Amino acid sequence: MMSPAYDWTMTSWLIPPMTDYPGFAFEVTRTVTGEVGWPDAARRGSITTPHGVIETPAFVFCATRGALRGVLPHQAQAESTQIILGNTYHLMLQPGAERVAAMGGLHRMMGWDGPLLTDSGGFQIFSLGRGGDMKEIKGSRTDVRDTSLLAIDESGASFRSYVDGTKVTLTPEDSIRFQRDIGADIILVLDECTPYHVNRDYTAQSMELTHRWALRSIAAFEESEEGSAGPQALYGIVQGGVYDDLRKESAWFTAEQPYFGYAVGGCLGGTPEEMNDVVALAMAPLNAAASAPRPIHLLGVGSVRDVWYGVAKGIDTFDCVNPTRLARHGSAYIRPGLRETKNGREFINLRNARFRDDMGPLDPECDCATCASVSRAYLHHLVKAGELNAVALLSVHNVRFMNRLLEDVRAAIDNDEFVERRSYWIDG
Amino acid sequence: MMSPAYDWTMTSWLIPPMTDYPGFAFEVTRTVTGEVGWPDAARRGSITTPHGVIETPAFVFCATRGALRGVLPHQAQAESTQIILGNTYHLMLQPGAERVAAMGGLHRMMGWDGPLLTDSGGFQIFSLGRGGDMKEIKGSRTDVRDTSLLAIDESGASFRSYVDGTKVTLTPEDSIRFQRDIGADIILVLDECTPYHVNRDYTAQSMELTHRWALRSIAAFEESEEGSAGPQALYGIVQGGVYDDLRKESAWFTAEQPYFGYAVGGCLGGTPEEMNDVVALAMAPLNAAASAPRPIHLLGVGSVRDVWYGVAKGIDTFDCVNPTRLARHGSAYIRPGLRETKNGREFINLRNARFRDDMGPLDPECDCATCASVSRAYLHHLVKAGELNAVALLSVHNVRFMNRLLEDVRAAIDNDEFVERRSYWIDG
Repeated sequence: MMSPAYDWTMTSWLIPPMTDYPGFAFEVTRTVTGEVGWPDAARRGSITTPHGVIETPAFVFCATRGALRGVLPHQAQAESTQIILGNTYHLMLQPGAERVAAMGGLHRMMGWDGPLLTDSGGFQIFSLGRGGDMKEIKGSRTDVRDTSLLAIDESGASFRSYVDGTKVTLTPEDSIRFQRDIGADIILVLDECTPYHVNRDYTAQSMELTHRWALRSIAAFEESEEGSAGPQALYGIVQGGVYDDLRKESAWFTAEQPYFGYAVGGCLGGTPEEMNDVVALAMAPLNAAASAPRPIHLLGVGSVRDVWYGVAKGIDTFDCVNPTRLARHGSAYIRPGLRETKNGREFINLRNARFRDDMGPLDPECDCATCASVSRAYLHHLVKAGELNAVALLSVHNVRFMNRLLEDVRAAIDNDEFVERRSYWIDG
Repeated sequence: MMSPAYDWTMTSWLIPPMTDYPGFAFEVTRTVTGEVGWPDAARRGSITTPHGVIETPAFVFCATRGALRGVLPHQAQAESTQIILGNTYHLMLQPGAERVAAMGGLHRMMGWDGPLLTDSGGFQIFSLGRGGDMKEIKGSRTDVRDTSLLAIDESGASFRSYVDGTKVTLTPEDSIRFQRDIGADIILVLDECTPYHVNRDYTAQSMELTHRWALRSIAAFEESEEGSAGPQALYGIVQGGVYDDLRKESAWFTAEQPYFGYAVGGCLGGTPEEMNDVVALAMAPLNAAASAPRPIHLLGVGSVRDVWYGVAKGIDTFDCVNPTRLARHGSAYIRPGLRETKNGREFINLRNARFRDDMGPLDPECDCATCASVSRAYLHHLVKAGELNAVALLSVHNVRFMNRLLEDVRAAIDNDEFVERRSYWIDG
């Protein structure tokens, strides 16, 4: 493996072999390096789980409360979805993790037989709890209001349930227990998701807490029975905010734990360039430390641009609520050639009157069920009328769009066309 | 044919042969009579249209603004839906009938290749316009407020558009022109849909106006080109309120026009028994007059009970918004054995806490996509969380439920089990 190109203090680490995760495997089949120099390294691979194989790079769709909004599981499958994510925070409050287990786990509960991932609950506690949302974490929002978050201490976090107003605590051990009950294939350790506005001292203390919670999460994982739907694989989370040394330190710490995979979380900066730099800081330690490659997930990021830049840094999987959220706001992802302007937005809003008489599909080259059957003019009509089916039709398209994008990313790596295809998708 | 069992004044009528409607046919394959004496006569048959054959008795699902709420066309088809209805009133206001034609007609616009029906716009003008809704027409609501309806005169009706507030007029000729543009297989004449509270004099005058409008509708139909999606068939509408002589007179008048089929509309009384009587009044003339059987539609009626009683009177098709409306309110149709009490409601509301831990499907004998994949407990969770997918999942079930109900009605006629099956569905 390559050596890290910077000072680091860790002198040893023990990386367990993959066989610690029965039913799981990660294989890298091709790596493309060299465009802008190391550590850029886009890679093709596959993650094997007890519920199927995920070809990587891959997009993970968000089914917040156990439902991919506007898309039923068989529709998601028909649009070539590989993996879906549920949020422990929402599911623990309603219907409750134990009840999910009683339903046979999240796979069976929602009727999805493919791979599933759950986050630890940390992101929602800290982002919703502080009155912010993803934007705040991502740096574009700085007015912080305390809402549901009550306290963070060594033991865990406490907050008010938005379902019934009761006080709820979540410790690292709770999070693992809930995720065992929910039963997703891939589960995450509890972290404190540090927001953008905090200073270096707070970020450093928060990172240390996250690391202590990580060790407790690992212990809880190792001491617990397998999940409600079989064996599970644990991912660690790299924090450290936008501070070079902290991000690297957190990455080295994370890299030496016996995780199946890693996730990069927390504040990644306020601009795409900053995000790119912060991700790069984490990648070198993660890739250098392991005796075998481990899948790396970038948390809560997934614009077209982010995907190409993340993959260039070696990211294997992404998740983002945008495909279904955009649909609920009447918007559809489109390819570069169909944008309003060169370098224009990655999506169009069907509410716009210019689509009133547009008899073509969202994208004549798209093979989704929506583009095969209805026109932009009809979608404009449905969006304007506030019809439910607009959300379903746009969500189906957006899911297929993201899956096609990732298919193109994978083909670009396989066919040595990464730079050309990235240029088409971002600048085209 | 049988003779009518009452006085009537019409002495002659000319019934054109079916060949006036190229591409259309109606065939009765079996009739069951005798349970409670003539005119009870449940019948099996089929309506052939340019977009496919409808096995009757059949249920027509409402896609008000050109979308069957919560169910995409390919899902409706998978759940064995035979025919869908669009509302001319809503479609003429938005996106506009001409724009529907520009999109290739309603079939192509919404991506549904099967048979379609449109109403004339009359029902919505008069029910919404008078501040009431279906309940008012059906007799369970009597507080009449004027809202959008501005005037009714010999020429037609004028009202305010709920889309942009402009004054809109709708004449019989307009309605036919709009329905030609929308292009459904089966279209209806414009009628004044008389509400429940009005007296005999008003009902009589209204019926006369409806008859004059009917003659103008027929003339407009005969003088116009075929619809945007090919040949169309015209249905007349029987009015006359709850008054015996008026209902019969309107039925005789309707029976002698060159329609492909008939619809029974307007106020049918305030109770199931009254509805039964009013429908019976219309049926004898409709069946007696024609030289060949014509399909008969019962407008806006479609509970489980209504279907069995309507079929017993000879009704071939029903439409009702309940399958999708109930779903939007968190409810699912269930079979008699699964009701809360004997003779209890035909549906259950999944919001009820008793479903929180109910791990079974809505109906273990149902073969819909929803019952095949998720539990009542999951649906309870989604309904409580206000998740969009609850509507989709419940709508799919309710559509399949209604189609299965009608399959059972057809089998009951074919197998001489009508009384037994009706008893199971209504009293079971």
